[in-house]
Amino acid sequence: MPADASTLVRRAGTGDPRAVARLISMVENGSPALREITAELCAVLRGRPAARVIGLTGSPGVGKSTSTGMLVRLFRERGLRVGVLAVDPSSPFTGGALLGDRVRMQDHATDPEVFIRSMASRGHLGGLAWATPQALRVLDAAGCEVILVETVGVGQAEVEIASLADTTIVLLAPGMGDGVQAAKAGILEVADVFAVNKADREGVQATVRELRSMTALAEGPWRPPIVTTVASRGEGGEDLMRALDAHLRHLEESGELERRRLARAREEIETLAVTALRARLADVHGSAHLDTLAADVLAGRSDPYTAADTLLAALEGA
Amino acid sequence: MPADASTLVRRAGTGDPRAVARLISMVENGSPALREITAELCAVLRGRPAARVIGLTGSPGVGKSTSTGMLVRLFRERGLRVGVLAVDPSSPFTGGALLGDRVRMQDHATDPEVFIRSMASRGHLGGLAWATPQALRVLDAAGCEVILVETVGVGQAEVEIASLADTTIVLLAPGMGDGVQAAKAGILEVADVFAVNKADREGVQATVRELRSMTALAEGPWRPPIVTTVASRGEGGEDLMRALDAHLRHLEESGELERRRLARAREEIETLAVTALRARLADVHGSAHLDTLAADVLAGRSDPYTAADTLLAALEGA
Repeated sequence: MPADASTLVRRAGTGDPRAVARLISMVENGSPALREITAELCAVLRGRPAARVIGLTGSPGVGKSTSTGMLVRLFRERGLRVGVLAVDPSSPFTGGALLGDRVRMQDHATDPEVFIRSMASRGHLGGLAWATPQALRVLDAAGCEVILVETVGVGQAEVEIASLADTTIVLLAPGMGDGVQAAKAGILEVADVFAVNKADREGVQATVRELRSMTALAEGPWRPPIVTTVASRGEGGEDLMRALDAHLRHLEESGELERRRLARAREEIETLAVTALRARLADVHGSAHLDTLAADVLAGRSDPYTAADTLLAALEGA
Repeated sequence: MPADASTLVRRAGTGDPRAVARLISMVENGSPALREITAELCAVLRGRPAARVIGLTGSPGVGKSTSTGMLVRLFRERGLRVGVLAVDPSSPFTGGALLGDRVRMQDHATDPEVFIRSMASRGHLGGLAWATPQALRVLDAAGCEVILVETVGVGQAEVEIASLADTTIVLLAPGMGDGVQAAKAGILEVADVFAVNKADREGVQATVRELRSMTALAEGPWRPPIVTTVASRGEGGEDLMRALDAHLRHLEESGELERRRLARAREEIETLAVTALRARLADVHGSAHLDTLAADVLAGRSDPYTAADTLLAALEGA
């Protein structure tokens, strides 16, 4: 595998889409060659400006894929190479064959300057946190200057994505009352830009008004702008691009870009370290075997903290 | 705090709602007394049959809170003490004052046999996995015979909840096309029972048909039943209860109940051990300090795997 990994990275570096696809699959499947692949990718990227990473998140049905498609077109018009990473179980990209609805991105399917990859890392605890930075690195090494990360919102996943992106767009649609409710409870803290999509529908002004009263309370130097779009017809795309560019300038001028990227690297290192520790915990045998400890807790012979102590003591003794 | 913790647990054991509320807040805030509280709770629970835990999940807008309210009423009619844990940023319970919409659970607010608590553990990596089992233990110790856990679906959170519940209900509503798409991509693996709520709306038959063709492919001894409900009017509640009871019987007869609860205990112990290790990683200083390592990775002087190795080596040397 080693020679193969090195060759793949070199081919991905020249923009070979099949090498890119293969590498991202290896990332997703936790290939044993990942350590070497990552080192090779880091070598390729050394000294190069990093790709701009933009996250799109929102509830199902707000038009994330259509909006992603619109942004791909607008960044392509600037002559940039674009990567798309869909980490979204409801995405037509991720759903793949099951959904049979790849129409919306079909426009870009034959463009050699657009790389679209989906990751279905659901169900793996920490799967997203672990695999996404590595997949971003593959697209970056393939020369993507902009990478769009699409993820379904409301919940843990969106917070993780926000920590991966330079700029996070939170998408809403009018008439999805619960969407704004969810927003109130937490989306505000991750949104750098709000896009109210499907703005040809009734209720758009109410949604915008509600968002405006929320963002008015935002603390800190950046107040998230609110843009209205009809992504299916490409309307509002230029406004969205202006908002994204304004946020990028803010990030650069405030030093926040560097801070976010440092936090991202820190998170990735920590996740890799914790994953290694977790694997060691699973390897501990004897009386500290996790199954035995779990049975003790269930039967009331122990409590989970004491069991965790036993597990850690066995790890240190191993 | 020690004496206080012991008193609180004793008072919670007698069903004192203020003690229950206080303990769950301590769980949420990661109180340093948690270790002792957990040991006391385990002592209270020793030898008692564990509460039945039912998870409700689904996209925003499918009627999770209304369905939870309906189930509370039906379990109360059986004379059972009921706990509700809302881990859902879009829930009227969790959203609290921001939303001002607690109407739907108002019916039960004054019933001394119903304990309703919300947890807003968004944004904390692993926060849900860590706090929810402990909050369940508090409600169990307070004598709740059934505990309903409401969580917003589509994504990581719902998978975590599925691992906590004996039975997981996946809620859908007609005309939410993306809901079923999401379902296709992954909800099937967590659903023990499907409830199509808002069944007075157009499109209910199409949604049921689609689910039926999905569940027809389900492997294993249990095929998730599909129930239609109009929770706001209490319609379909008895059907849902029958489906829940059938699943409980299946769990008991197949030995799956014991397996699920063992897996839950295992997961909790592992999470506590990993959390402890994570805290130690954050404490490592010197040249292996995470900030220094992150800066090295960003500058291309190192790669994340090598940085993780350095961090772990420092941990072992510490």
